[in-house]
Amino acid sequence: MNQPIAIELAATKKTKPQADQLGFGKYYTDHMFIMDYEASKGWHSPRIVPYQPITLDPASKVFHYGQTVFEGLKAYRTDNGSILLFRPEENFKRLNRSNERLSIPHLDEEIALEALKQLITVDQDWIPDEDKTSLYVRPFIIANESSLGVAPSQNYMFMIILSPVGSYYAEGIHPVKIFVESEYVRAVKGGVGNAKTAGNYAAGLKAQEEAAAKGCTQVLWLDGVERKYVEEVGSMNVFFSINGTIVTPALNGSILDGITRKSIIELLKSWNIPVEERKLSIGELVEAYHNGTLEEAFGTGTAAVISPIGELHYLDEQLLLRGGETGPLSRKLYETLTGIQTGVIADPFGWTVELPSAQYTAGTK
Amino acid sequence: MNQPIAIELAATKKTKPQADQLGFGKYYTDHMFIMDYEASKGWHSPRIVPYQPITLDPASKVFHYGQTVFEGLKAYRTDNGSILLFRPEENFKRLNRSNERLSIPHLDEEIALEALKQLITVDQDWIPDEDKTSLYVRPFIIANESSLGVAPSQNYMFMIILSPVGSYYAEGIHPVKIFVESEYVRAVKGGVGNAKTAGNYAAGLKAQEEAAAKGCTQVLWLDGVERKYVEEVGSMNVFFSINGTIVTPALNGSILDGITRKSIIELLKSWNIPVEERKLSIGELVEAYHNGTLEEAFGTGTAAVISPIGELHYLDEQLLLRGGETGPLSRKLYETLTGIQTGVIADPFGWTVELPSAQYTAGTK
Repeated sequence: MNQPIAIELAATKKTKPQADQLGFGKYYTDHMFIMDYEASKGWHSPRIVPYQPITLDPASKVFHYGQTVFEGLKAYRTDNGSILLFRPEENFKRLNRSNERLSIPHLDEEIALEALKQLITVDQDWIPDEDKTSLYVRPFIIANESSLGVAPSQNYMFMIILSPVGSYYAEGIHPVKIFVESEYVRAVKGGVGNAKTAGNYAAGLKAQEEAAAKGCTQVLWLDGVERKYVEEVGSMNVFFSINGTIVTPALNGSILDGITRKSIIELLKSWNIPVEERKLSIGELVEAYHNGTLEEAFGTGTAAVISPIGELHYLDEQLLLRGGETGPLSRKLYETLTGIQTGVIADPFGWTVELPSAQYTAGTK
Repeated sequence: MNQPIAIELAATKKTKPQADQLGFGKYYTDHMFIMDYEASKGWHSPRIVPYQPITLDPASKVFHYGQTVFEGLKAYRTDNGSILLFRPEENFKRLNRSNERLSIPHLDEEIALEALKQLITVDQDWIPDEDKTSLYVRPFIIANESSLGVAPSQNYMFMIILSPVGSYYAEGIHPVKIFVESEYVRAVKGGVGNAKTAGNYAAGLKAQEEAAAKGCTQVLWLDGVERKYVEEVGSMNVFFSINGTIVTPALNGSILDGITRKSIIELLKSWNIPVEERKLSIGELVEAYHNGTLEEAFGTGTAAVISPIGELHYLDEQLLLRGGETGPLSRKLYETLTGIQTGVIADPFGWTVELPSAQYTAGTK
C-alpha cells in the first residue's frame, strides 16, 4: 500500500471481561483503526490508535443524512492458537458495493484488509478462546463533512473497531419465534435494502419492538410491493427446507447479499442437497406447513451464524416447526460452518484466512 | 419546565459571514442546545453551550444503525427588528411522530420549543436581515449508546444548531429541471418515508447524483409499489396545477407530512382555489401536459419555500412547463408565504411566533 499504517499503542490496557459476560457488542478492545478521506486527498492517514471517542461537528452529515455503511465479520482463535478470519475479502467487496449505492468513495479493499489484519494482530489477546466465542470485527464508514446541504459528503472516516463476543444466544444454537410482519416493510427494490447501511436497521427497530411485545424474537420481512414474498428474518437471510429442497429468497435488489447466506448455499451444494434461490411467498410456506413438507427454517448471519426458527406467527396462525426444536439440517450447517470458522473442521473451500499469532500463549488471556 | 436551561456563553464570538456568502448550512452560530436522555433518568440536563464538536464512542448506535431524527425550520428578522418563527410547534409535533417510528423516546414539545426560543435569543445577532436570508434551525436527536446489538438505544442526545442561510437559490425563486426517477425509490409504505430520519436522505443521494449528471437539479420520486404515482420531488413535497385545480399527492405513509405543504394547502383554500390531495400518476401528468392542462408545478419545503419546476424529464420526453419560467401561482405563493414568514404581510392564520429581541439594533450585525 502507498501509506504505511501508523501505530500508536495504548499506554494502559483495559481489563478483559470474563468469557461468560461477553454478550454481543458490549466491550471493545484496546485499539481501533482510522483512515480519513478528503475530496482533495483521497483516503489518507491510515492509523491504529488507542480505542477512544471520536470528535465530530454537530453538523456532520452522518447525523443528519445517514451517509454511512458498515460490515461485520468475526475472528476466531483456533485450538492450536492461530487466528482465523472468515472470507474477509467478501466483506470489503460488499462494503464497496454499499459505498457505491450510498455515494461514498471507493475504498481500496487490500488496504482495508491489511488494516484489519494489523489491528487484530495488535489486539490479538482480546480474541476469546472459549467455546462459542469470537472477536467481532466492525468496519464502518461515516460522512463527517459539516454541512446541512443534502448532497454527498466531501469528507469521510473509515474505522474498524473490535468487540469480543459470546455466542449470540447463550445456548449456542437456539430456535427462535418469528413474527411474520405485515405492517412494516424493511426495504423495497430501488431502495437501499441490498446495501449494508444504517437506515435499513433504523427502519426495522419498530417492528422488532412490536414483535418482542408479542413474544417473538424477530420479524420475518415480506416484500414491500406485493407484501407476500419472503425477504429476510430480522437482520439475517432466511432459508426453508421444503420437501427436501432448501429454498432461500433470490437476491432481488432489496435483500442483503449475506456472506453466511452465500457460504450456506455453497455448503449445501457441496453436499448435493438441492438449493433454490427464488421467489418464495408466505402462502407457499403456510401451505407447505399444512401439507407437512415444511421441514425446517433458519436464519443466517455473521452474528448468530445459524438461527433456527422454532415458530412462525402469521396473522392468527402459529406454525410450530419441529416442535420448536432445532432441526438436523440447521444443526449440521451450524456445526460445519462454525467448525470451519474455528479451524476444528478442515476448510475445503479456502474460506478461512489465517493470521500470524506470534505473541499468543494459550491461557494467558 | 422542570429543569431550567443552563446557559454557558461563548468566551469569544465568531466573525459572521457576509450575507452574500451564506449559502445553505455552511456556517454555524456561537451556541448550540443539548439535552441528554438516559433510560433511567429520561431527558435531562438541558443546556446552551458554545458551539463545539461533540464526542461520541465509535460504537454509538447512530453510526451503525441510523437511529436519528431531525427537523428544519427558519427564524426571520422582520423590518422592525422582531424575530419570527414559522409554525415551530408543528416541527416538534412531527419530531415526535418521527421519534415514534424510529423507537426514540418522546420529547416534551414545550421544553423543546422553549429551548429553541432561548437559543435563538442568545444567538439573535446571527439572524441575517438582508432580503431572502434567514436563520435555519436544525433540531435533531441521535442515539449514542455504545452497543452493536441491533436494538433501540438506551441513550440519546437532542441538539439544536443554528445556521444563517441565504436564499436556497441565488435568484430567490428559480425554476428547476427535474428528472423523473424510474430506477431508484425513496421510500415505500410500511417503511420510514413519512418520518424525518437520516436514512431517507442517504437513500436519495445516488439518484440525485445521477440526475445532476443528466443536467437536472432534483428527482421526482415515484411510488415504490406500482412505480407510477408521484410522491415527492428531491426532499420537497410537490404540487401541480392541472386545469385550474391544484393537485398534490395524498399523505400515504411514504410521503413526508411537510409543514410548508400543509401551509400551501391552507393558503390555497383561503383563496378559494380548489386543492386535491390524492393519488396522481406520472401518466396523468404527461397526458395533462400534452392536452395543455398542466399549468404549473412546484416543490415546497422549508429550505426553498417554493421551488418552481421548469422542466420534467421523463423517459425520452422533456416536458417544458411555462417555457421554463416561474408561473404566476408559484410566484404568488412564494411571495405570500415568505411575506408572512418575514412579517412583510399580515399573518391571518396565526402561523408566526414572535420572539423578544431586546438587544437588537438594526445594522449592528
